[in-house]
Amino acid sequence: MKRKVTLKQIAKELDVSISTVSKSLKNSLEISEDTRQKIQAFAKLYNYKPNNIALSLKNRKTKTICIIIPEIIHHFFATVISGVEQVANENGYNVLVCLSDESFDKEVINMEMLANGSIDGFIMSLSKETQQKKDFHHIVEVINQGMPVVMFDRVTNDILCDKVIIDDNLAAFNATQFLIDKGFKKIALITTVDYVSVGKLRTQGYIKALKNNDINVDESLILKIEDTENFESLIENLLTNNDLDAVFAVNEIFAVTAIKLARKLNIKVPEELSIIGFTDGIISKYSTPSISTVSQNGIKMGGKAAKMLIERLESEEEEDEQYSTEVIETELVERESTI
Amino acid sequence: MKRKVTLKQIAKELDVSISTVSKSLKNSLEISEDTRQKIQAFAKLYNYKPNNIALSLKNRKTKTICIIIPEIIHHFFATVISGVEQVANENGYNVLVCLSDESFDKEVINMEMLANGSIDGFIMSLSKETQQKKDFHHIVEVINQGMPVVMFDRVTNDILCDKVIIDDNLAAFNATQFLIDKGFKKIALITTVDYVSVGKLRTQGYIKALKNNDINVDESLILKIEDTENFESLIENLLTNNDLDAVFAVNEIFAVTAIKLARKLNIKVPEELSIIGFTDGIISKYSTPSISTVSQNGIKMGGKAAKMLIERLESEEEEDEQYSTEVIETELVERESTI
Repeated sequence: MKRKVTLKQIAKELDVSISTVSKSLKNSLEISEDTRQKIQAFAKLYNYKPNNIALSLKNRKTKTICIIIPEIIHHFFATVISGVEQVANENGYNVLVCLSDESFDKEVINMEMLANGSIDGFIMSLSKETQQKKDFHHIVEVINQGMPVVMFDRVTNDILCDKVIIDDNLAAFNATQFLIDKGFKKIALITTVDYVSVGKLRTQGYIKALKNNDINVDESLILKIEDTENFESLIENLLTNNDLDAVFAVNEIFAVTAIKLARKLNIKVPEELSIIGFTDGIISKYSTPSISTVSQNGIKMGGKAAKMLIERLESEEEEDEQYSTEVIETELVERESTI
Repeated sequence: MKRKVTLKQIAKELDVSISTVSKSLKNSLEISEDTRQKIQAFAKLYNYKPNNIALSLKNRKTKTICIIIPEIIHHFFATVISGVEQVANENGYNVLVCLSDESFDKEVINMEMLANGSIDGFIMSLSKETQQKKDFHHIVEVINQGMPVVMFDRVTNDILCDKVIIDDNLAAFNATQFLIDKGFKKIALITTVDYVSVGKLRTQGYIKALKNNDINVDESLILKIEDTENFESLIENLLTNNDLDAVFAVNEIFAVTAIKLARKLNIKVPEELSIIGFTDGIISKYSTPSISTVSQNGIKMGGKAAKMLIERLESEEEEDEQYSTEVIETELVERESTI
């Protein structure tokens, strides 16, 4: 059986990273000449076919777009998919969904698999690992070959393309200010590690609100969670060791976990502890008490991203290098978890 | 720009259904000769290219599989996707996800789009509308052309292929028997309309358990929900108008909604009302009280489906018509919503 050799197979065979293979095949000077030659020879031998997007794009449209999301556990990404589907279908486009599973390699492989003319363009939110590595060559390549990319939520300034974001800094500032206005001073933050762009911005907004109100920033009240496996005990420690007034959590799983643990520790929510989450998903709605939250409006975000991508795909001008960044409005939804 | 005309465009242009176009192009005798000729002429004029799977399949493998799910709101399908991803990635396969949005047309379009050699095989759960129409020609075609399909959860006996299911009837029987063993007699069922295969089987299991225990089946305690929009008031009526001992709900959104409404009506869960759900998703885990539930094991189901598909793709035998149906074990997870 004659199989097309993939980037992944070359990487495995030569024991190098997928990124190294990809860069070597583009003759990038970042890779040593020796390695480049070895990889290029191997690719030639096994008949590796690079993508010829530039060739194919002029002549055909697939009327299909792909959305790449980092994971599917958080309801937020499911709502973005719904928003993309809605606008895409209205405009006669099909949608494919790919998961990067927070992995750089899977992001590269998914883009390679589809950027060969199977689809017309990408909507994507960066994987954690890609944000940590700051290696965006696979996205740059796709854009340079003429295939439009719209980034949403987890974006980077290192890539010039259309983007849809919320003002994470401002939304976190407003949520924290809301808690300060209730008279709270000991406000903890449960956030992600800093290399996740949105986590960092939300942390900045929280700190800014405290400083604006002359409240001391106590680093021991800022919990930065890296691993999604063992965060329960970290949150339990935070609640046990501090006599908190309130908690601001940057996603709804952190928020609902704080509520469950407060209950276990006999801390009454909201009477003794107010909790605000982020992302207005099914958990926030169905939790008891239901969770006050920053509504991130994933449906609107997905719809806007699809609209921007389709407009670019259907625009008559060949080289429209004016990229824009759309900021979706957020709002604070008050429910039962805050007094 | 030269665009490939799609089934959907032909259907719209000639004001017929996608199914009619698809069948006409296969010269199906179900469609009148006049309509067939008109559609075939139009397709020829606009250069419609049917899929030539049989041609392409012999010579190449894409190492990509597609999973088609009906919707993404219920966490169950997200867990199945995770299971598929895991096993597929271990075996060097990429995964694409498509949503049918419970629509027959979208299911047909997605299969048409990908069955042209972009992928090696499908894993799918039927849309509500497909189950209602009982029109499976698009799946039969794909299978006849040599592309393997594995169905999971919402399957049909009308299609011969590999399947992964749970024993919905038995799982519902066991959940109901569990409630009867607590001494409960007035047990309500919140289920879906009968054309959704799993809803029907779960309803049968519930009725069987009641009959086995000589409990009268009271039709007014069986709530069959069609529309996902307005089910809250239906559940509220059910709880208000009956002095229930327990509720068995066939998914976790129905279960958590019953809990929320019981709380609103000052009915204490579990002291005055026990509630069991189906699908052990994030809502069941994070709800207060947490929800006792039939664990459907989506990760295992997805993993098994991927394994069956990949084994078929990599088997040496050309025509292995021995299909099998794997039954995944379920278990009852006891939490706080039952006494």
